[in-house]
Amino acid sequence: MTNTMFNSCIQACSNCALVCEACASACLREENVQAMARCIELDRDCADMCALAARLMSRQSELAKEFCALCAKICRACGEECAKHQMDHCQECAKACMNCAEECERMAV
Amino acid sequence: MTNTMFNSCIQACSNCALVCEACASACLREENVQAMARCIELDRDCADMCALAARLMSRQSELAKEFCALCAKICRACGEECAKHQMDHCQECAKACMNCAEECERMAV
Amino acid sequence: MTNTMFNSCIQACSNCALVCEACASACLREENVQAMARCIELDRDCADMCALAARLMSRQSELAKEFCALCAKICRACGEECAKHQMDHCQECAKACMNCAEECERMAV
Amino acid sequence: MTNTMFNSCIQACSNCALVCEACASACLREENVQAMARCIELDRDCADMCALAARLMSRQSELAKEFCALCAKICRACGEECAKHQMDHCQECAKACMNCAEECERMAV
Repeated sequence: MTNTMFNSCIQACSNCALVCEACASACLREENVQAMARCIELDRDCADMCALAARLMSRQSELAKEFCALCAKICRACGEECAKHQMDHCQECAKACMNCAEECERMAV
Repeated sequence: MTNTMFNSCIQACSNCALVCEACASACLREENVQAMARCIELDRDCADMCALAARLMSRQSELAKEFCALCAKICRACGEECAKHQMDHCQECAKACMNCAEECERMAV
Repeated sequence: MTNTMFNSCIQACSNCALVCEACASACLREENVQAMARCIELDRDCADMCALAARLMSRQSELAKEFCALCAKICRACGEECAKHQMDHCQECAKACMNCAEECERMAV
Repeated sequence: MTNTMFNSCIQACSNCALVCEACASACLREENVQAMARCIELDRDCADMCALAARLMSRQSELAKEFCALCAKICRACGEECAKHQMDHCQECAKACMNCAEECERMAV
């Protein structure tokens, strides 16, 4: 990756996107899917936002900073929801989301 | 990431997607953009394919293996084109594409 | 849209992608989410595949035909699952998927 | 499409995303690619933003309105750049972008 300025945020977003995808799929395989509906909903948005954030930063897009500000919001919302659930996939996702939120907030300034 | 089976291929695809985005943007800033047109075109397709491959594997989608077979093709095409150009971004992209092609081929079997 | 050759397939894919997104979200709001888990899973894959199919065709990508062949498969799988459920969002999605499968199959030849 | 509230904005975004993809590809085939570099760069960002805007609205995501506000900005930037170029693909793209910007601005309020 050549964009050293954005590098740690790109990695955090790229990782968070995939952890959210995995979390949504694992939630769908839980016995009580009902209880995971909100988590799945946020995972989907968070995955899409983080994936595009990583893309825009890799491009050094002029949109990147403003996008990161919005991305941080969904990361926090998703991380807070995931943190409520004890399954490993949700706990792992909560950590990835919170880390990504911090990276995006730092980028957005 | 919980999908250990797919793990190294997910990482290769995720990395390749972003390196292709960065390469396309760097190509657009070259003095002779004309010479890079084919490279940019392939970078765009390769970035999209690799990003979706990483997503599908993270989801453990039943489509993942067949998708990886197709993804390997565009990675090879993009890697071969990039390898022709001496700029760092193209050489780095060629490496990421070839590595990703191998990982996807292994996954596709 | 300038790609008249691909035009009706692009429209079918573009529409199917969004109908699948709407169907997944509506499924998550059903009382018995459990029963919709498979539908949501397929909706996610189908939405991503159709969205990328539309993109590749709009670009006149050399990958478009092979991609459409794979896209048709997930459209059929998603359409068959949706057809089993009586809710409007699933019935509408089944129709969009089947129409898209046919368009993609025609394109793939 | 079941989201009547968002419907015309979803259609504008979905169309704009694909017109931008087509415009970027057509720009890459122009004799003077150099002159189109900025246009291609904006087309890529605008295509990605509009595609995700359409997705989020189709999901009735709580992020949709804020996302549309940001999407409107890139649509305007891309539309203004495209409007400078006389080729049909750029003129068509300028129109799609400006229409999409207006729809997104209306949605964002």
